[in-house]
Amino acid sequence: MACIAMLGCGTVGSGVAKLIYKNRDRFKKNLNEELILSKVLVKDINKHKEKNKDYILTNDVEEIFNENVDIVIEAMGGINPSYEYVKRALLLKKHVVTANKDLIAEHGAELLDIANKNGVELRFEASVGGGIPILKSLSECLVGNKIKSIKAILNGTTNFILSKMSKENMNYNDALKLAQELGFAEANPESDVMGYDAARKLSILSTIAFEKRVNWRNIKISGITNIDTEDFKYAQREGCEIKLLAMSELQNDELYAAVSPVMVRKNSTLGRIENEYNAILVDGDAVGDVVFTGKGAGMFPTASAVFSDIADIIQSKRESTLIFNYDKADVNTLWKRESKWLLRIKTEERIKAMETLTEYFSNCSIISKELYNLDGEVAAFVKSQSEAVLDRFIDDIKERINTEEIKKILILED
Amino acid sequence: MACIAMLGCGTVGSGVAKLIYKNRDRFKKNLNEELILSKVLVKDINKHKEKNKDYILTNDVEEIFNENVDIVIEAMGGINPSYEYVKRALLLKKHVVTANKDLIAEHGAELLDIANKNGVELRFEASVGGGIPILKSLSECLVGNKIKSIKAILNGTTNFILSKMSKENMNYNDALKLAQELGFAEANPESDVMGYDAARKLSILSTIAFEKRVNWRNIKISGITNIDTEDFKYAQREGCEIKLLAMSELQNDELYAAVSPVMVRKNSTLGRIENEYNAILVDGDAVGDVVFTGKGAGMFPTASAVFSDIADIIQSKRESTLIFNYDKADVNTLWKRESKWLLRIKTEERIKAMETLTEYFSNCSIISKELYNLDGEVAAFVKSQSEAVLDRFIDDIKERINTEEIKKILILED
Repeated sequence: MACIAMLGCGTVGSGVAKLIYKNRDRFKKNLNEELILSKVLVKDINKHKEKNKDYILTNDVEEIFNENVDIVIEAMGGINPSYEYVKRALLLKKHVVTANKDLIAEHGAELLDIANKNGVELRFEASVGGGIPILKSLSECLVGNKIKSIKAILNGTTNFILSKMSKENMNYNDALKLAQELGFAEANPESDVMGYDAARKLSILSTIAFEKRVNWRNIKISGITNIDTEDFKYAQREGCEIKLLAMSELQNDELYAAVSPVMVRKNSTLGRIENEYNAILVDGDAVGDVVFTGKGAGMFPTASAVFSDIADIIQSKRESTLIFNYDKADVNTLWKRESKWLLRIKTEERIKAMETLTEYFSNCSIISKELYNLDGEVAAFVKSQSEAVLDRFIDDIKERINTEEIKKILILED
Repeated sequence: MACIAMLGCGTVGSGVAKLIYKNRDRFKKNLNEELILSKVLVKDINKHKEKNKDYILTNDVEEIFNENVDIVIEAMGGINPSYEYVKRALLLKKHVVTANKDLIAEHGAELLDIANKNGVELRFEASVGGGIPILKSLSECLVGNKIKSIKAILNGTTNFILSKMSKENMNYNDALKLAQELGFAEANPESDVMGYDAARKLSILSTIAFEKRVNWRNIKISGITNIDTEDFKYAQREGCEIKLLAMSELQNDELYAAVSPVMVRKNSTLGRIENEYNAILVDGDAVGDVVFTGKGAGMFPTASAVFSDIADIIQSKRESTLIFNYDKADVNTLWKRESKWLLRIKTEERIKAMETLTEYFSNCSIISKELYNLDGEVAAFVKSQSEAVLDRFIDDIKERINTEEIKKILILED
């Protein structure tokens, strides 16, 4: 018998509870193991009474740490008080399953260390990519590979907004509003649209993939708030979509890691991922490119991943292969490969800007003003040896001409 | 220390040997376990001497069954003598890893039974989808789901041929020849182009997904030898690609299973899978659609999966969750959902055929003769309530008109 207690009963928690009830008979039949959800911690028992069998609800956290409990599911989200509760559960030698990417990105190494020392498991498959089985695939199935790169769409909210901007010519604010109305974006969308959510997930993926601890604060993070309808016109001209990509890649033996809006070919693997879907493209030296696609969030996709962690813990007598407490990685935030970029220079000194562009880049295609009718702007696709070279040009031109803003977007060809 | 012996050293075997050597240090560092490839069985030692360290080569199969050996890798392919060797290894309480889909599709249930009884593992991740981690994802990561359907491109050879026919207007014979020249098709391509290879893989996937034993001989199998350039013109007209799909799906609580050329929308998930790539689309009741894409064959993708099985066995103290000896499934080979189909009726009695078509189907669009200039043929897209209804029409029209052949291709809209 496996006795499970759960912290929180919001969207994720309710889904997990339903999945546990639904799979009890099958679990018993196939694995001869009884799943018992013994206690669920909620703030207000009356609020949840109708949707749950009330005898398992409690507002007393001590009941979660009861000695009979084998596995604690953390489904509260956020860092406080999740961090303290998870730590306490592990110290009490209870296995913990969580979907909380904020918690793992922030305290994963410490918590896994505590879990190891106490001979219990800390599992967090649902923290990245919702129901897509990416952490287990990286840590177990691709274990014979040296991972060369990860390129991923890890945030459904921003992918939904960018899809609407691209396919239905909506502007950013309207697309965000629609996402909020449909429940794909929260009332306060900052963590999503600023790229923080994707960066936390990328830090978890990269730590496992590259066997070095990647702190999410060391990742270069640009969100999508700066993307406008004109950017999509330029992208269209190049046969591209704009996607918020989470990228980590070994470039000249250094680890590059960034979350940024990037142009990808419309017919490429990532260019085709629409709306709230997530996709993770992993390039391993043996397996080549492997792509995992699915819903990255939502009640049941997330619960599906949480449930697989529970099943793993119950069936497994071995220690986890999830390693998180590697040495810290030095993270490079500058793109080192030769690539094409879109440059948009806001200036009234158009002629001077164009001269400077053609002088600087041997491979430069300036987009004709007539095409997009943008006053006070020069836009060009340039090929640059590296991002550092491009940044030097940007600094340089800022000294030569009056410019309000220079915007750059990477075009990813692979 | 884990002592490994291998049967065979062709493409897959060489890849596995290289991956074992390459990962030894990392394995030791991360998991404190020594990997030793002790013996490799080959027919002719001299033939392999240059590429391998000769001290591990042997042509005496008894050395493989030496008492020091913990894990036997079967990399010979085919059923004979693989079946006998694998059985013997399991009976001697050695773990076995294989990439052999023919062996597993034919004898998987018996061999897994022997493995269970002897307390050892039989693993075969590489048998389906090459390096794509699909079996573990199905049996462990999606364990909380009831699987509703699997739709997959499981054979790279046929997908390469169909891609060339579609994108480069090649005919079947030229595309097959090119595939053979590039090493994507074997000299005798029968198992691939007739759909047997895909059917064997589908039987393995379906057995795990639906928890009923699906015999590959009960699957309806149509290959691609019958697909001609005209089919691609019709597909083009509908905005479709033709793909050899391996499909299993619960339809009205019955399991439908078939391998067949199917039209899928060009911009759909499976319509976009090109050349030698494989893709598996799994629809689970909790997780929704999850898609796994990657190279389904080749030395290192296959070795990557074999290596992950080895790693699993070494690190794991638990019994596998791979179950294969379920009760036998009743397999339905008729498509039960209302769908659109392409019908091509070879006949000189065109008018009569057209009359019969419009009489029979309320939703029928006959393709104008001028469009494709096909003498002696009536082609139409019809909507039929089920495949059985369509088949009754085909029987019916065969009685009414003189026809050499009637061809039908399903159009999959989801």
